[in-house]
Amino acid sequence: MLNDYISSNQKRIEKEINRYVQQLSIPLELKNSMLYSLEAGGKRLRPVLLMASYETYGEDVSKVFSSAVALEMIHTYSLIHDDLPAMDDDTYRRGKLTNHKAFNEATAILAGDALLTYSFEVISSDPLLTDREKVEIINKISKCSGPSGMVAGQILDMEAENKEISLEELENIHNLKTGELLKFAITAGAYLGNATEEQLEALEEFSYYLGLIFQVQDDILDIVGDENKIGKSVGSDEINDKSTYPKLLGLDGAMERKNDYVNRAKEALKKADADVSNLSALTDFFSQRDH
Amino acid sequence: MLNDYISSNQKRIEKEINRYVQQLSIPLELKNSMLYSLEAGGKRLRPVLLMASYETYGEDVSKVFSSAVALEMIHTYSLIHDDLPAMDDDTYRRGKLTNHKAFNEATAILAGDALLTYSFEVISSDPLLTDREKVEIINKISKCSGPSGMVAGQILDMEAENKEISLEELENIHNLKTGELLKFAITAGAYLGNATEEQLEALEEFSYYLGLIFQVQDDILDIVGDENKIGKSVGSDEINDKSTYPKLLGLDGAMERKNDYVNRAKEALKKADADVSNLSALTDFFSQRDH
Repeated sequence: MLNDYISSNQKRIEKEINRYVQQLSIPLELKNSMLYSLEAGGKRLRPVLLMASYETYGEDVSKVFSSAVALEMIHTYSLIHDDLPAMDDDTYRRGKLTNHKAFNEATAILAGDALLTYSFEVISSDPLLTDREKVEIINKISKCSGPSGMVAGQILDMEAENKEISLEELENIHNLKTGELLKFAITAGAYLGNATEEQLEALEEFSYYLGLIFQVQDDILDIVGDENKIGKSVGSDEINDKSTYPKLLGLDGAMERKNDYVNRAKEALKKADADVSNLSALTDFFSQRDH
Repeated sequence: MLNDYISSNQKRIEKEINRYVQQLSIPLELKNSMLYSLEAGGKRLRPVLLMASYETYGEDVSKVFSSAVALEMIHTYSLIHDDLPAMDDDTYRRGKLTNHKAFNEATAILAGDALLTYSFEVISSDPLLTDREKVEIINKISKCSGPSGMVAGQILDMEAENKEISLEELENIHNLKTGELLKFAITAGAYLGNATEEQLEALEEFSYYLGLIFQVQDDILDIVGDENKIGKSVGSDEINDKSTYPKLLGLDGAMERKNDYVNRAKEALKKADADVSNLSALTDFFSQRDH
């Protein structure tokens, strides 16, 4: 049932993403490059989380489509830039050539810039949102993805390469690099659903643990995952001497830590004062995902 | 007198830019890289134009500081990404090392991403603007700088390299690559100053010619300019076989064309129905600048 919920929301958001990009009158190479990475088969977890968070409090989910599309565009731009030769220098992502390999480096840089910029046009043009809601969403998403958020995480991640770092430093990097966008997904959904201040606080706490669960599982999959499912080779963290949960805590320790975070996430959900069954099921899904 | 006006507004906006970046609690390397390019001695022409356009109709100019800062941040991010090895591969800009040479490529990419994202936080956080004004400004600036605007211009500019293009194609590229941000400067200033629909239309027409004047003069300076003043070697357009006004019209033809645009810009200003002396003087300044 959760799988149906996820896949139907994936399809809805993919239709919206396509609609927003197709309506642009722009150079063909730019549009193709943007669409290539948007359609590269991601799981749309962030939009699905945003929609689930909204539906915990709100009614007509089309109210969050523009925010969900913008979020997926920002996530996608960050992957395109992250894969560049000067950054992680990746040739494949999810089993497909990375953007700069399928097009070229200049086009990949510009496609990323275009997706980031367009995400703000998407939100600010949405006739379903009030001006107050648009400003709040834009303010939230720029903070989560900008120099105090995701971009800070990417710089710190780079600086931590080939260095011994503590678990605390590791969690700070993950919170910034991946946690901030998950926080946006959860809090933006609840905000647009008119959650109260207390409910918003509970969901923000929930999103914090959800981000950590996501990352611990990522590290675990790099050891015990199935290469065909995760779409990249396993063991790359160890080869690259990356700081990971299993490296710092051992594989069993990392699993224990993850279960602890799942419990804390569900404790936070209890304070959300609503039917949180979808968010709770998504937490288990995140914790047990095999790719 | 115009020089005093320009330099006092430059100083005000530089103080604001510095304040906005200094208040960020972010990794030092990222902050330094953002500040390095923001402080690389640009002429702040876009913020000055925005302020002059605002003052044609409005009172307290501090109302446009956030828009002017955001505009300069977006202009600066575009220069950082434009200079990258995969794009123009420049070592110097305005006589200083380009961002990726002073730092490294990954940091330069991220500093550009950070400036672009932060510009939307700057506008959406400004207590001096109403929600309606913030949404309108964010919508305008994302359109002018995104895939239908500046980024489209950069893709088309790349595609036109080493190709014969017509004057019409050349002007389309310039309109997108540099004209769109000038249009934002002029129309955002007038909008925040509460200009009428007719006044806004007149200024948008003005901004169109201003962008072209800017570009013709750029091409002319590449032939007759003083290297010490323009901060780069002259003759590079010819060496790179770039399509320029002098190449397509001859040097005299390019000068004539520029004077024609100055006349059209001033005709448009007459319809602006206000004291346009600063905008008129800035037009001459653009047309006659030696760097």
